[in-house]
Amino acid sequence: MQEHIVTSFEEALDSINESLARMGGLAEKQLADSIEAITRRDRALAEQTVASDKQIDALEVDIEAQALRLIALRQPMAIDLRETVSAIKISSDLERIGDLAKNISKRALAVDQASPGRAMQGLERMGRQVLNQLKEVLDAYAQRDNDRAMVVWRRDEEIDEMYNSLFRELLTYMMEDPRTISLCTHLLFVAKNLERIGDHSTNIAETIQFLVTGEALGESRPKGDTTSVTSMEYPTDAETPTQS
Amino acid sequence: MQEHIVTSFEEALDSINESLARMGGLAEKQLADSIEAITRRDRALAEQTVASDKQIDALEVDIEAQALRLIALRQPMAIDLRETVSAIKISSDLERIGDLAKNISKRALAVDQASPGRAMQGLERMGRQVLNQLKEVLDAYAQRDNDRAMVVWRRDEEIDEMYNSLFRELLTYMMEDPRTISLCTHLLFVAKNLERIGDHSTNIAETIQFLVTGEALGESRPKGDTTSVTSMEYPTDAETPTQS
Repeated sequence: MQEHIVTSFEEALDSINESLARMGGLAEKQLADSIEAITRRDRALAEQTVASDKQIDALEVDIEAQALRLIALRQPMAIDLRETVSAIKISSDLERIGDLAKNISKRALAVDQASPGRAMQGLERMGRQVLNQLKEVLDAYAQRDNDRAMVVWRRDEEIDEMYNSLFRELLTYMMEDPRTISLCTHLLFVAKNLERIGDHSTNIAETIQFLVTGEALGESRPKGDTTSVTSMEYPTDAETPTQS
Repeated sequence: MQEHIVTSFEEALDSINESLARMGGLAEKQLADSIEAITRRDRALAEQTVASDKQIDALEVDIEAQALRLIALRQPMAIDLRETVSAIKISSDLERIGDLAKNISKRALAVDQASPGRAMQGLERMGRQVLNQLKEVLDAYAQRDNDRAMVVWRRDEEIDEMYNSLFRELLTYMMEDPRTISLCTHLLFVAKNLERIGDHSTNIAETIQFLVTGEALGESRPKGDTTSVTSMEYPTDAETPTQS
């Protein structure tokens, strides 16, 4: 975040890309820690994750300022302009990812009940997949590898499916045992946050496509989150599963 | 969205602002309709709202393309650059508002149970306030009125308070009557979406501040959504309120 004495467009862009690489690393760590904090109920880690989000926010402001200065002073065209605009877009997605991870950590601090083991396993699996997608898309960006970005883009459907199944599972727990309502509500929002982090990774994949090819993605991504149209019947006593 | 033959920077900017004004109007209508659809359980209106989000998405793509072309070809500086960048930022917030409203409408389609009247009243009140904030901030933008934008920015705290109280209320309903869990979960997400639409209005207010004064907001907005750290005890039978 120090001021650089910049002599060429390339140097200015290198400086932006350096900040962005750092920001990507921090967002990845923030997400990994928040998943760890909620699944292991690690309060110290949760508090640390909440605090460290400020660094990510500061980097976004810094990258945007550098990029706008660069556009204003150097008037980049074609690929150079796409590089600069892509940096702004990706830093905005990373800032949102940091925010969503912070929110997961806050919920880790609120969760004081033991939680249904199976639901936690599902959440952990979903978290691993979301983290993996973020790593992959940041690698794809570092290498300007559009094919690799498109793999991430297509694979988001799996996350949506995990989310749908977790959503139903958590609703079922609440219905079976209303004492878990407060806890399961927090876990529902955690799952939703993970699903949205997945969406931000696909946004980054789309930006890579635009950066590398100069064309926006025409095909629209299959949307797999169907929970907004999910309606579950409250089971009658006879139908209620007996496991607690 | 037709191609304009542009002869000056001002004309190009006018064209962008025209698209943005249209987009603002559509986002406002989308939000008003989605609130109406969920509170009156109007399926036809909900379906129509889901379908009309495409128009808002298309306008975002169009505005971003116009703005980038303008930056690349005309190299605006100072206020002109801020005008152009602000248009990109505001269109991105409006696109998210359209998305969140679409999601509310989808949930209106899923809600097939009668709902606790009091919760619905709270949701309606919150919806009115969120809609009012969006209208105010779009007016502030149209008039480049920073004072008016700052009123919106400060008033977001009230929405956060409404959200916190609705959150607790809905959790209480679920605990009192587990048959409402599926319904109340949808209403929880609707409330969360409204709270996030409020956040996007404050983002727009911050962009207006940057546009008018050239400076980013230093002071950080008071964050009032505390539900991520809310932990509710399941009431014992003796404590359970008796009203249904």
